[in-house]
Amino acid sequence: VLSTSVDASGCSIKGFPLVRNISELPQDDYGRKGLSHITVAGSLFHGLKEVEVWLQTFSPGTRTPIHRHSCEEVFVVLKGSGTLYLAPDMHRKYPGTPQEYSIFSNSTFSIPINDAHQIWNTNQQEDLQVLVIISRPPVKVFIYEDWSMPHTAARLKYPYYWDEECLQATSDKDEL
Amino acid sequence: VLSTSVDASGCSIKGFPLVRNISELPQDDYGRKGLSHITVAGSLFHGLKEVEVWLQTFSPGTRTPIHRHSCEEVFVVLKGSGTLYLAPDMHRKYPGTPQEYSIFSNSTFSIPINDAHQIWNTNQQEDLQVLVIISRPPVKVFIYEDWSMPHTAARLKYPYYWDEECLQATSDKDEL
Ligand SMILES: [Zn+2]
Ligand SMILES: [Zn+2]
Repeated sequence: VLSTSVDASGCSIKGFPLVRNISELPQDDYGRKGLSHITVAGSLFHGLKEVEVWLQTFSPGTRTPIHRHSCEEVFVVLKGSGTLYLAPDMHRKYPGTPQEYSIFSNSTFSIPINDAHQIWNTNQQEDLQVLVIISRPPVKVFIYEDWSMPHTAARLKYPYYWDEECLQATSDKDEL
Repeated sequence: VLSTSVDASGCSIKGFPLVRNISELPQDDYGRKGLSHITVAGSLFHGLKEVEVWLQTFSPGTRTPIHRHSCEEVFVVLKGSGTLYLAPDMHRKYPGTPQEYSIFSNSTFSIPINDAHQIWNTNQQEDLQVLVIISRPPVKVFIYEDWSMPHTAARLKYPYYWDEECLQATSDKDEL
């Protein structure tokens, strides 16, 4: 049962209740097959300015793009397991071969700012579910095609809003 | 089994591993009976500057002090249930009678900045476990004895570090 404060597009149409049931919040793959993303607490609809909290579920084999950002990011693994790929900034022209870390249920890690990284559900048996905390929304993200793409060629996406159709919908309404 | 990077006092003595098992992190009641606090990701030992993440468990009847702060705070309820007491800022001289909200497993809420609030495990049957995300550590907290204490009389605690004995221990070592 979806909350009555969410319209058919998954966008907020009026104030959210203060206490929200996470299982009733809108979820979407935002065009990334195998991903389920829920904005648990966000800037666009919950009015936060300093932090955002996301709940993301990756089906087996699903991964984030290789990317970097200057905000802080903390992960708490709620279910499943997988691999964190992280290329420490060696002041090279490209990320280079990443280090691999096993991540598992009830583990936590934070991403050093500006280090290129990727989360990958490398467990073929079960979903990987993580809570993601980021600072200073919206995220300014640089996306790499592969680990040898030069930093200067990484594609900038800013502002990075998950629910940008909602932003559009909100703007449209404002103009009416 | 405690991680080898944690000494007997529960303080870090050298670098934490990047991926940490939350169940192996030091936990303490920090002098508050019925509370278990774990700093999942923090400023003092994990080097974060913009967010902190805590895992807190309240036994039945256990509660936070009535308090306010200007940082953002998001709660995700992992287990149990309880009550959020929140006194919206009415520009009065004291918080006044708070509103009550039921909180429950898989619910989320964020505290409007500077509103006095209290989390209380009002469920006599089970523990209340929450993940707490705060911005701009360390927290500058104002603590109230009761809901009718004037804002100007609230007791300031700043910086509010859970693991301040560790801070002290670290400073002592620096001086050696
Ligand atoms: Zn990231
Ligand atoms: Zn608080």
